[in-house]
Amino acid sequence: MYGDKNIFILDYHYDPDLNIQVVQMLPIEHLIIIDKESKSPVYRQIAASITNAIRKGILKACTPLPGTRELSRILGVHRKTVIAAYEELHAQDWISIIPRKQVTVSARIPLLKAQRWNASKPSGSYENNFQLPFKKVSAPVKSPMAAGIPEMIIDDGYPDVRLSPIDELLKTYRTNTSRKFAIKNAHAGTEQGTISLRTELVQYLSETRGLTISGENILVTHGAQMSIYLAARLLLNNRSNIIAGKPNYPVANKTFAETGARLIEVAVDENGIDTDSIESICKKKTITAVYVIPHHHYPTTVTLSVERRMKLLELSRKYSFVIIEDDYDYDYHYTSSPYLPLASSDHKGNVIYIGSFSKILDPSLRIGFMVAPANFIIHCTALRRMIDAGGDGYMQNALAALIKNGEIKRHLKKAKKIYHQRRDFLAGLLNSRLHKYIKYNLPSGGMAIWIKLLPAYSVGQLMEDPQLRIIRVDIEQNAFRFGFAAMDEKELEVVVEKLRGRLEEMDAKGKIKKGS
Amino acid sequence: MYGDKNIFILDYHYDPDLNIQVVQMLPIEHLIIIDKESKSPVYRQIAASITNAIRKGILKACTPLPGTRELSRILGVHRKTVIAAYEELHAQDWISIIPRKQVTVSARIPLLKAQRWNASKPSGSYENNFQLPFKKVSAPVKSPMAAGIPEMIIDDGYPDVRLSPIDELLKTYRTNTSRKFAIKNAHAGTEQGTISLRTELVQYLSETRGLTISGENILVTHGAQMSIYLAARLLLNNRSNIIAGKPNYPVANKTFAETGARLIEVAVDENGIDTDSIESICKKKTITAVYVIPHHHYPTTVTLSVERRMKLLELSRKYSFVIIEDDYDYDYHYTSSPYLPLASSDHKGNVIYIGSFSKILDPSLRIGFMVAPANFIIHCTALRRMIDAGGDGYMQNALAALIKNGEIKRHLKKAKKIYHQRRDFLAGLLNSRLHKYIKYNLPSGGMAIWIKLLPAYSVGQLMEDPQLRIIRVDIEQNAFRFGFAAMDEKELEVVVEKLRGRLEEMDAKGKIKKGS
Repeated sequence: MYGDKNIFILDYHYDPDLNIQVVQMLPIEHLIIIDKESKSPVYRQIAASITNAIRKGILKACTPLPGTRELSRILGVHRKTVIAAYEELHAQDWISIIPRKQVTVSARIPLLKAQRWNASKPSGSYENNFQLPFKKVSAPVKSPMAAGIPEMIIDDGYPDVRLSPIDELLKTYRTNTSRKFAIKNAHAGTEQGTISLRTELVQYLSETRGLTISGENILVTHGAQMSIYLAARLLLNNRSNIIAGKPNYPVANKTFAETGARLIEVAVDENGIDTDSIESICKKKTITAVYVIPHHHYPTTVTLSVERRMKLLELSRKYSFVIIEDDYDYDYHYTSSPYLPLASSDHKGNVIYIGSFSKILDPSLRIGFMVAPANFIIHCTALRRMIDAGGDGYMQNALAALIKNGEIKRHLKKAKKIYHQRRDFLAGLLNSRLHKYIKYNLPSGGMAIWIKLLPAYSVGQLMEDPQLRIIRVDIEQNAFRFGFAAMDEKELEVVVEKLRGRLEEMDAKGKIKKGS
Repeated sequence: MYGDKNIFILDYHYDPDLNIQVVQMLPIEHLIIIDKESKSPVYRQIAASITNAIRKGILKACTPLPGTRELSRILGVHRKTVIAAYEELHAQDWISIIPRKQVTVSARIPLLKAQRWNASKPSGSYENNFQLPFKKVSAPVKSPMAAGIPEMIIDDGYPDVRLSPIDELLKTYRTNTSRKFAIKNAHAGTEQGTISLRTELVQYLSETRGLTISGENILVTHGAQMSIYLAARLLLNNRSNIIAGKPNYPVANKTFAETGARLIEVAVDENGIDTDSIESICKKKTITAVYVIPHHHYPTTVTLSVERRMKLLELSRKYSFVIIEDDYDYDYHYTSSPYLPLASSDHKGNVIYIGSFSKILDPSLRIGFMVAPANFIIHCTALRRMIDAGGDGYMQNALAALIKNGEIKRHLKKAKKIYHQRRDFLAGLLNSRLHKYIKYNLPSGGMAIWIKLLPAYSVGQLMEDPQLRIIRVDIEQNAFRFGFAAMDEKELEVVVEKLRGRLEEMDAKGKIKKGS
């Protein structure tokens, strides 16, 4: 059909059904799949098809290929396209070209056992599942590919990035990237954190948290979660027991489970984690570590009381376990100044203190820190280097500058005031519009309120609304976290109205049910 | 000494040496340590001292404390300062205040076994080493605290950030951060990579690398190293064997060792890793994975030949091992267009493909990617979420925009041209000025030249120069990597001159030795 001449390729393959060696004659154009839709240029597609045929042993060493003029005719593409394809193949030693004489598959291609050739399946595709065994991780995560962002999201306590000094941050970032040799300075030692950021943190943490530390006690991470992961990896194994609150920050629990350690859950009441239960557990078994979120516990937002803080430190000394103090929410306290961290007390170096700037500036700004004894930090840094060569040095130095010039403190002061107002404004809305449906305790700080639905209403149904996504929902407790910090009063009002509407519907449905 | 009245605190503690209970009388001022140098405000220091005394059981429940006027006199500080300290303590329930009557330690403080009190050691300090057992990581890393950046650094192949479109990147970043609700969109699904970045990558990788994939096959990481770590964690355990080249990228080797897997090293010659040796090893034992850097092998910069690529794919099918293809250096090829990745061939889904933008834009920009079958990506994403809640969504979306509007391609075109010139310029310098001391093979691409010193000279001595730091040195091979991409011709000349000077010195010393 393509005029006088056709090029045939012999395709030897083994047919398992017939258990014989099959020889087929394939016209060359069947080897070449051109997808006009594809983003990949046609010459690339031609080259790829031929490469794949060679790889599969369909085209063998020294097999003659049609000339450029001929192939362009066969495929119905411009000759330039074929020339480009051949040039690419030649540059990569797949074919040899004797100008104005012939084109052949390179003689240097080793002979391979021919395999069945299947044009239908795109070659080299990742459609196949992974064939070999690999470790399965609990609670696999798959992000949606469809941009399904609902119009309203109740987060679990994000800061309002619109208030954050991101501009100052990026201005510094830009000047950093434009300096000569800056690249090397910025990249130096980012696995533990740049010198300037760690130096600033030493002062910052002493002023704000009463920590007496040096730069060797600091590891700059990609956020609180990385600190939790590193600590868990180094402390825990399949023979360890770790204690955490119930309910607890779920990702932390998964991280502990991932190490093979046994997770022992201890009730969290209005004063935080129950230290008496911890004591009785310690009497029975060896505890490697206790994970606490002193303020404000996730998800319930309670603050760990002074008595229990002291009790916990006492127990850690007596039963020598590590306290992993996740203090991500330290900076936002509205009624009084926050309790100094456990890490600021005399703990003989067995408190690992975890903090983050994601909650101060922006959850997308991946900078957090771990404070621990130098010998522990050294090994955490070594592990972190394997996980991720290092951090963003420019961003670290930019943040250091913002700490040094007081920008962070000014921002915190401003944000604290605004979040305080938003907390109270939301409380007002909850009291005036949702009192029929919910109960809650006003948290003394933080960026979220823990809201329990009355038994008559189901938080599960709240989640069914496509326009409203609630990030942290607890079905068991029929409750959810209402992050108020990232919304201004107008937005808070809109979202609360939305919730009221949903709950009213449930009410109506409920009444109808009762009625019928 | 403080006038008429002194407040005494009874300090009960057990003395292990004397094996008796000791009772001491301590004047209150000994409990309070004020460091005028400290960045921490004095009122905080006073509050902290008292808190610590309470925590240690030195100050017990209901113990009376001096009034504000009195304490200010005792400590020689302004009364306002003491008031501030007491207010802080009161707000945190440490003390109770009966106005104009008395100040006492709160009655709610539980009774603790008193401990020895030691004013000399700063309380809560992290000077102590970590007391409890924890897993030690091989090759612990400790970044220097002194800003010891030598004036010249020979990196192992960084891009020149001065050429990178960082400004465009940050402009987009800024607009992203200023949009309403943008924060939530940016933060959605960053554990696998934002939808917009993964969507762009599907097309980008198809156009540049002939990969036929969908967004489900992509995990956006913090760079190539994180992809290596995730793959290793899921594939390897203490019963697995993994093959890698010798010499190899050291951090990768450490990462494999960290999983407990056995590392089998295979020689790398001028055609890349020796696939025949791999075959004979596969005949003897079960191999879980083979780690390859097809172009350009680290540190020696060789490109894996077509024959060996095909052989490797054939072997992976026959002996069903995973190929971990670390193609970090794909984009810079000067003599011909690069070989298509192994991942673009028909591999039944058992090639894990690793790439990074750190080498394209900036080593401090922590964005890389892993391509693998969807079922593997799902579990990698779950593990990644534990390691680090997610990536920088703004940066990911900003990068997506740069890919979409062609900025990245334009940059690569420009950078490739300039790096090509720098490679040749450096080669010229090496030939004209260092030919007496070294030998090297010109790499067909990449950002570094692998330079071997002649036996008479020691790379170890080169490292002793405080003004010159060489990032990748191989003592065994008496060689080092000379990253040329990040230096302009002037800088290259300066550094080569520096090297020549050092080598001449060695020469002289050598001659003297021989002479004597």
